[in-house]
Formats: sequence, C-alpha cells, structure tokens
Amino acid sequence: RTELTTRESCRKITCNLNRKKASHKGIHGHLLIIAGSSGKTGAAVLAAKGGLRAGAGLVTLCVPHKLNSIFEATVVEAMTIPLPNSTDYILHDDIDLIIDAVQGKKAVVLGPGLGTDPSTAKLVMQLYSSVPCPMIIDADAFNILAANKEEIPLPAGPRIFTPHPGELSRLIGKTADDIQNNRLEATAEGCDVFSGSDHETIFMLKGAGTLITSGDGKTVINTSGNPGMATGGMGDVLTGIIGALICQGVSVRNSAIAGVFLHGCAGDCLYEKKGAGYTASELADAVPVTIKKFLND
Amino acid sequence: RTELTTRESCRKITCNLNRKKASHKGIHGHLLIIAGSSGKTGAAVLAAKGGLRAGAGLVTLCVPHKLNSIFEATVVEAMTIPLPNSTDYILHDDIDLIIDAVQGKKAVVLGPGLGTDPSTAKLVMQLYSSVPCPMIIDADAFNILAANKEEIPLPAGPRIFTPHPGELSRLIGKTADDIQNNRLEATAEGCDVFSGSDHETIFMLKGAGTLITSGDGKTVINTSGNPGMATGGMGDVLTGIIGALICQGVSVRNSAIAGVFLHGCAGDCLYEKKGAGYTASELADAVPVTIKKFLND
Amino acid sequence: RTELTTRESCRKITCNLNRKKASHKGIHGHLLIIAGSSGKTGAAVLAAKGGLRAGAGLVTLCVPHKLNSIFEATVVEAMTIPLPNSTDYILHDDIDLIIDAVQGKKAVVLGPGLGTDPSTAKLVMQLYSSVPCPMIIDADAFNILAANKEEIPLPAGPRIFTPHPGELSRLIGKTADDIQNNRLEATAEGCDVFSGSDHETIFMLKGAGTLITSGDGKTVINTSGNPGMATGGMGDVLTGIIGALICQGVSVRNSAIAGVFLHGCAGDCLYEKKGAGYTASELADAVPVTIKKFLND
Amino acid sequence: RTELTTRESCRKITCNLNRKKASHKGIHGHLLIIAGSSGKTGAAVLAAKGGLRAGAGLVTLCVPHKLNSIFEATVVEAMTIPLPNSTDYILHDDIDLIIDAVQGKKAVVLGPGLGTDPSTAKLVMQLYSSVPCPMIIDADAFNILAANKEEIPLPAGPRIFTPHPGELSRLIGKTADDIQNNRLEATAEGCDVFSGSDHETIFMLKGAGTLITSGDGKTVINTSGNPGMATGGMGDVLTGIIGALICQGVSVRNSAIAGVFLHGCAGDCLYEKKGAGYTASELADAVPVTIKKFLND
Repeated sequence: RTELTTRESCRKITCNLNRKKASHKGIHGHLLIIAGSSGKTGAAVLAAKGGLRAGAGLVTLCVPHKLNSIFEATVVEAMTIPLPNSTDYILHDDIDLIIDAVQGKKAVVLGPGLGTDPSTAKLVMQLYSSVPCPMIIDADAFNILAANKEEIPLPAGPRIFTPHPGELSRLIGKTADDIQNNRLEATAEGCDVFSGSDHETIFMLKGAGTLITSGDGKTVINTSGNPGMATGGMGDVLTGIIGALICQGVSVRNSAIAGVFLHGCAGDCLYEKKGAGYTASELADAVPVTIKKFLND
Repeated sequence: RTELTTRESCRKITCNLNRKKASHKGIHGHLLIIAGSSGKTGAAVLAAKGGLRAGAGLVTLCVPHKLNSIFEATVVEAMTIPLPNSTDYILHDDIDLIIDAVQGKKAVVLGPGLGTDPSTAKLVMQLYSSVPCPMIIDADAFNILAANKEEIPLPAGPRIFTPHPGELSRLIGKTADDIQNNRLEATAEGCDVFSGSDHETIFMLKGAGTLITSGDGKTVINTSGNPGMATGGMGDVLTGIIGALICQGVSVRNSAIAGVFLHGCAGDCLYEKKGAGYTASELADAVPVTIKKFLND
Repeated sequence: RTELTTRESCRKITCNLNRKKASHKGIHGHLLIIAGSSGKTGAAVLAAKGGLRAGAGLVTLCVPHKLNSIFEATVVEAMTIPLPNSTDYILHDDIDLIIDAVQGKKAVVLGPGLGTDPSTAKLVMQLYSSVPCPMIIDADAFNILAANKEEIPLPAGPRIFTPHPGELSRLIGKTADDIQNNRLEATAEGCDVFSGSDHETIFMLKGAGTLITSGDGKTVINTSGNPGMATGGMGDVLTGIIGALICQGVSVRNSAIAGVFLHGCAGDCLYEKKGAGYTASELADAVPVTIKKFLND
Repeated sequence: RTELTTRESCRKITCNLNRKKASHKGIHGHLLIIAGSSGKTGAAVLAAKGGLRAGAGLVTLCVPHKLNSIFEATVVEAMTIPLPNSTDYILHDDIDLIIDAVQGKKAVVLGPGLGTDPSTAKLVMQLYSSVPCPMIIDADAFNILAANKEEIPLPAGPRIFTPHPGELSRLIGKTADDIQNNRLEATAEGCDVFSGSDHETIFMLKGAGTLITSGDGKTVINTSGNPGMATGGMGDVLTGIIGALICQGVSVRNSAIAGVFLHGCAGDCLYEKKGAGYTASELADAVPVTIKKFLND
C-alpha cells in the first residue's frame, strides 16, 4: 500500500495550477499564517515566502505586535495582523482577532516559530478544534499537540501534520533512531493519534524519502530532495507551499504530496547548481520556476 | 467606441519617456505617495518601487511616524515624511503637513494600504477635493469614496480611479460577478459617478483585459498581462508606474493607458521566465527593461 | 583651460587602485560619513554603499541614535556610531563624539540627507572649520554653507563641493536656468566663494557634463553619464565613491575627477542594459566591475 | 615545519562535507554565535551568513535584546536569543542564559562586534574557561583576552584564535610592522600565550598568506585570497565558516585550515569577476559554489 511520487503522478494532481487567463487574486486563495515569536520570526517569514512563491493569491501573517516591523520589512508582498495583546509570542488573549482572521481564508498554517508558552498552547488547542478550513500543523504547534496528546480535541476541519523524526518522537514516545529504523510504522502510529474524526487527516514524516500517509493506510514516499535541505528553515517554506496549493484548489491530500515533491525539486535544482549551503529563502524563490517546468514538461 | 492597446499605440503615447541628455531629476518629476498602515506597509512600499522603477525623478512617501523605519529600511531610494500625529494609520490630524507635501509634486498616489478609519476617510475626502495635481485613487481611498458616494465632493484636479471588480462592486452596488459579465457597462457606470467636474476623470476596471475609460465614452482595452499577476501587491505597483509616467510629462489619460500596458508587459516577461509565483517587487524591478525594449523596438 | 575626462586620463590618475597582494583593510582607508535624518536615511545609506563598493577599507556612519537600526539593517558591511543626543537629525550636541570619530579617518563625507536645522547648521560650520582631513560637502551641508555664505569660516583641510545647479543657485544668487546657460562661469563663481584658504578647494557643478574646477582656473568636463542618472540618490552614491578613492591614496583633485567619471561609467553600463529606472543602489553595486574594466582595459 | 595549503590537501581534510543522502539538520550541527553590539551588529550578521552558507545545520545568535529586530530582519534563516539584560552590548548579567544556549551546540563563535565593555570582558573570560565545545575567538573577544593576558584562565575546550596583525600586536606587545616582518615568529609567540592546556589550541595570523599554527610547531601557510578581501566584515564571515565546518564533523585544526582556504577561494572567485569592492555578504553567498567545485573537481 505504498507508492513513490513521480513527476507524472505529481503533474496529474497539480493540474489545477495551470491558471486561466481571467483569474484574479481572489481565485487563488488567501493563506493565513499563524507563526513566529521573538528569536524565531524567520520561521514565519519563510512560511510566507513559501506561500507567495507557490502562488497563493494573498498571504496574511498573524504576529505579535511588537515584532510586526520585522515582518513588514522582510516580506513586503504579505500583509500582517499585529496582535495587540501579544508581545514576544502569540497569546491566547488574541484568540478573537485570530478567529476573525480565519474567516475567508482557504488554508491556515499554524506553528513555525510559535514557541510553546502555556498561553500559546491553549491557543493552538482551541484553533485545532475550531478552525474549519484545512490547517497545516508544523513545528511548535505539533510539539504542543504532542505534549498534550491525551487531551487532543476533535478537529473542525482537515489537518496536515508535518513532523520530522525528532518531533514525532515526542508524540509516540520512541527515540528518533527507532523512528528512522521503522519510518513506515512510526508514521502510521503517529497518524493513528489524530485519526478517527470526520475530517481528513494527512500525516507526514519528513527526512530523506518523506512519507505521507492519509490514515486509510495508503502511504506515498517522496522521491525528490537532497541533503542540502537538511538545514534550518526548509520545513517552514514547505508549510507555505502546501498551504498555497490548497488555496489554489488542489485537494488537501494532493497538496501535501505535491508540496513535498515540488519543495524537493526546487531544492534539487539549487543543489545541482550550488551544492549544500543554499538558503531556505533561495529555495522559496526557486519554486515558481520549478512549478513551471513541472507543468510544461 | 472601444479600442485595443497595441505596442504601436502605446509607443506613440510614451515618446516623452525618451530622455534628453541634459535632463535632471527635477525634470522627471516628484511623485508623492500617501499610503500604508500597520499591517499593510507593503502596499505603500510597492507603490514607491513602481514609481522609482518607472522613472520618477524623486519619490516621497507620507507615512505614519511609528512605521517610518519600515519604509526607510525597505526602499532606500525614496524619501519619507513621517507624520507626527499618525501612529498606526494616517490621520486627518496631519492634513496640513500633507497639503504642504503636495506642493511641487507632479502627481499623487492616494490609497494603497491606507485602511478605512473615519479619520483617514475624512483626510481622503479633503485631499480629493483640494489637491490640484493629478491623483491616482486606489484601494482603500477608492473604498472610502465608494462608502461615501452620496457626498463625493468636486475634485480639484485630474483623477484616475483604479478599482478591481470587488472594489467597483462597493461603488455601484452590483456583485463582482455581475460586473465581470458586463465589464464595459460597469466601467461606464463607475466612471459616471465621478464625471461632471471640470477636471479629467479616468476610470479603469482591473482584471484580465483591464478597461480604461475617460468619461467621454472612449474606452481602451488592455492586451497585456497574465494570470500570474493575480496576486497581492501587483495593483500597488501599477499606481506608482502611472504616477511616474505623469511625472515625466505623459498626459493623464495616456499615463493610465500606457501604465497598465507596461505593467502587463513587465508581468508577461516574468511569466514567460518563471510562470506564476513572481512577486510584485520583481515586477517593479522588471519595468525599466520593459520600457527600454518598448521604446527601442 | 578646460579639458575633457577620457578613459586614458582617468586610468592614469587612478593607478593607485591596483592593489598590492599584501594589502589589508587599514591600507585602504577608513571613510567617515556624517549624514541622514528622519525621512532621509536613504541618502546616508547610499553614500555608504558608494564608499564600500568603490573600495574603502572601512566605512563608518555617524547617525542619530533613534534611526540606528535602519542603517544597521540596511548596510551590514558598514559600522555606525549612534549619536546619543541626536534623535531625528544630527545635533551639535554630539560634536565631541563626532570630532572623536574623525580621528584616524582618511576622508569625511558631510551632508547627504542631513537636514538644515539650526543645530545641524552649527555642527556643519564647526566641522567645516576644524576637520583636517579631506571632506566632501554635499546636499544639505552645502545648503547650510550657502545659507551662511557671509560667515563661512576658513577650512581646516581640503574640501570638495558637489552642488547641482539648484544648490549652486542658493550660493551665488543666480537662477538654475542662468547657471545652466553659463555653467563654466557659474562654477568658477561658486568656487571663488570657498577659495583663498591654504587648503585645496575642488568645486564641481553636477549635471550632464559635470564640471570640476580646482580654483586655479583649470576645469575638467566629465564625459560619462546619462539621463537615467537624473533620479534621487545618485549624488549620494557619488560622495561615497569620491571618499573611497581618497581613502585609497588617490589625490583629492583626482578623486573628484575620477569619482565623477567612474560614477558615470557605472551608470552608463546600467543604462545600456536597462534604460532609465535603474536605482542608485544598483549603480553603487555596479562600481566594482566598472573599476575593474577600467583598470584592465 | 611549514607547509602550503593546496587544493589537494584541503580536499582531503574536508571529505566529511560530502553529505549522505539521509542526513538531517541535526547531523550538520548547531552553531552558536555570541557577537554584535550597537553600531556593530553587521559583524554578527556576517558571521551568521558565513555559518549558514558553509553548511551549518542550524545557526543561533545570542544578541542584546534591544538590537534583536535588526538580526531577525537581516538573516531570516538564523534564530536569535534576545538577551534580556543586554541592551546596547552583551552583558555578563546574561551569562546564565548564554551558558544554557551553549548546550547541544557543536561550535561557538565569540567576538565579532562584541565591544570591550568591562562587563562584556568578564563574560568573555568566563566563557573562555567554561565552554567545553570548540570556540572561535575573534575580534573584540581576542582583544579582551589580549588586554588581560596575565589572567587568561585555562580553557574548557579547543580554541581557535583568529587575530590580524593589529590585534596580535596588542597581545604580544610588538608593532604591526614588526609582526608583518616576522609573521611566522609572531604567530608562534601568540600561540604560546594560549598553549599549555589539555585542549587543542589553533592560532592564526590573518593577512596575505594567513598562517595557521597548532602549537606543536606545525604551521600551514594559506595560498588563496586576494587584496579585495582587505575590507570590513571579511573576517567575520570567516569565523562562521570555520564554525560550520566543525559543526559538520571536520576536526578543529582542519576546520581552521580549510575554512581559511575556502574563504580565500570564494574571494578569489569574486575578485576575478568583479575586482575589489565585492562585499563580505557576497563572499558568504559565494561559499556554497566554492565548496561544491572544491569537492567535485
């Protein structure tokens, strides 16, 4: 019940990305990113870059108001919502404004650089259970759920989980080494934790040959990517790419599969040119050409 | 009474852009941009980039003083006027300083990322009725006029309106879908709202095949552009381009027509290279080469 | 008594720029830039970029402390001295720190974006009369001297003045048009105002065919440059280039002549590629290749 | 007992950099950079860029909290730890947080742009004697040790010292000229000051033909580099490169030798293209391709 992603399979599932002449930014969807804290704003910035480069019509970041100028100066094409009660990290006190911001969005990214303060944790749990649109749950949002795994509420919509082995380790109580030795099994075990609701659950395990499973036992093994991607920020860009694909009408499962594949292809293009040491920003910037080649080949 | 923009027609109306050897920055005009608020500074930044890249001699931004450092760090070639009474968005309290700033400018861009606070609205209404130089009215400035359409004062100079269907919808009380199905009629209807003064009124409806009408029933249909432009920030760059053309001596009507055409050509050049996912900043940066090719072909 | 700058004449006077293998950053000189105010930090940033790109070993900016983060985020290769008493513009109150900063510098740029507050004016007058190293006096520093032309003190070292016709107009009380019609005469008249001290005076009049005179009646006419340079920030870059040449051991007069010529050549290279609309930052970035071609041809 | 670095010798000692397919960011190591102060944040930024470009899995900067936004806006791929007690420069008051931050790091860079305040000096002395992982000691950290050379404590781990002649001068009480005339001897003398502990000591003297000695009398002379590197910030990038090599499993001594060689090769590549005037940021960005060419030739 496993299969490999190929250029052909991926092209088939992303045909929605071929734009019609009369499209407008509303059609390509509005992506909301809830991410970033003092010292880790870069994670949110990189998620926004991934979203913009993969073709989301609009990208908005919910950010602590004290850090707002960092975001505004760094990604001028994104909008921000400076959260008035949050200073160094996002607090539950701003839940109402965030819930408002979710209205009209086609996908939400939750997690990159969030931190794990108890108030942030309370916010994550509540958004998990109340946001109806597809949500990509990464990094600290995943860590928060893992730390509260006995109390995970039912989700209000489709959820995509994107842990690497270290993060999965916290969820299923196995070491990262054990996980690496049984990646398929560990992924299934992680997915089980979140299954059983009425909504789609996509669970991936990042690393060489990222696994993407959908809870029904079908698992896809990614075939793109390279060791130059094993550096900070690459996962943040991925969340934005997946969110942007959902925004443009690709199904949740296919957005996860194709997002991982395209992310790896963009990295492969850079790895061939530069070897290791390319940055996550550069990977985001390489996404448009990657998608173009991909659709036209 | 409609015609298509062609490379030939556009070249003819932009011949002023061929610079004389002895020109200086004063000759190429000073563009004033009144735009930006907390969370939406990017819109103002992108308008400034459009203005600089399309050849305005000088560009100055009027901005809330609290946000000033964002602008200064992001577009070093523009100057700013940090408004002392405005913190998160521009307040009517700074009207005197703004009126002073208008002196000596050849064109004014009003609207990108302004927000629609009542004090900002009061400012927009007053500037609309008192600024004698050509003014490009976009985004929130347009929304403010639409929300107060019963009380729109007479303008003090030429005005260019640049709504997309969603914005026009608020002005004429039809749905965006209705507007898209009758773009020519809706544009004429929108234009009528602002006609009847002694000053030139140019009204456009953005989208695939942007329409530009001049109140006398003549309408131009733009032929450049592509669906990669259906993303946040592209319209902001356009306002800066149109402003810069006016600054350089192109007529108001021709600046609107040629601005839209060149904006689309710059996008087409990027779309061919990268597919969708190029940014509004990249589009602005592509403008000089686009104009050069255009004038020399 | 006038001659044209040619590639040959310029190559001859910049032979010092061919670096020896065992050079170190101390040898290439330390440039101090006193510039910038709220709304005009870009001018100081661009002067610093000009200095770095033209090969100064080190560049330090004296800046109002409140604006410091703008500079640090924008030119990471330059150092700054945040002036503790200056908030929105540089005050005379920080004179002691600035005088300290001058120690060990090979050249000083004074003026881009300074503003003309009375306290800043007092500072400019005092630095003019007390700084022993070569000083490039541009923009607002020039305006301040022009506004106080009856009280200009004797300089403590070589001075280079870089007005455009509008600025010269304030000094000699003629209109910019009159100046443009008699550029040679106006330049001589401007130079006369500052002559008569024991120190070298170089006076230029910017514009197409920039004139550079040295007070002994010899005038050089620049032959590089193009109308794409008639845009904000280009002059700021020039001050940094001239300062960097002095830092590297080129004589004061030759730095002015070669600086203007190289600045124009860098612009010509961009104009050929892009037409008008290239930015002052791009011009600065083009300087290294320009100098390299120049030395190796 | 001296030998020259060659491409062959350097390739041999960096074979660890050829990445395995299944690597992840944890494998490539986490580099901690303790650097920067008001006016000199650029030095820390450039060290981070060097670390990221040379392939460190993660890079974290310890910085004064007041300056944090500068770092976050400038290197989005790095994380920061804003030190709560430090405003304009790093204070000893934050020692506990810094000691915590050292946990789990594979290498530490200490010094670029730190300043030499007594509290900072106390911090440097304590970190020197207590951090067990390899530490690169540069710029102001070196100056602090030199100023306190009678009281230098025993180190808790391997130490790499990277002075240029002016900095070494302060340590051994000879003029920079004397040092340049007897580079081998001066390097040995400098190295002696820090030898005698149980931990590896690597001591280099930067400049044309950088010397790297290891305390056992063996000295390597670097053969790459060019006079375009004699400009501010180049040394900061070097510290990051060396740290990144250690992070990736290259030995301490070989990281110093190969770091200097690769740094020079990256510069040579730029010098050939641009001549002098390339920036330290550009040098950092050129490192990946340099390493790639190097490993594949």
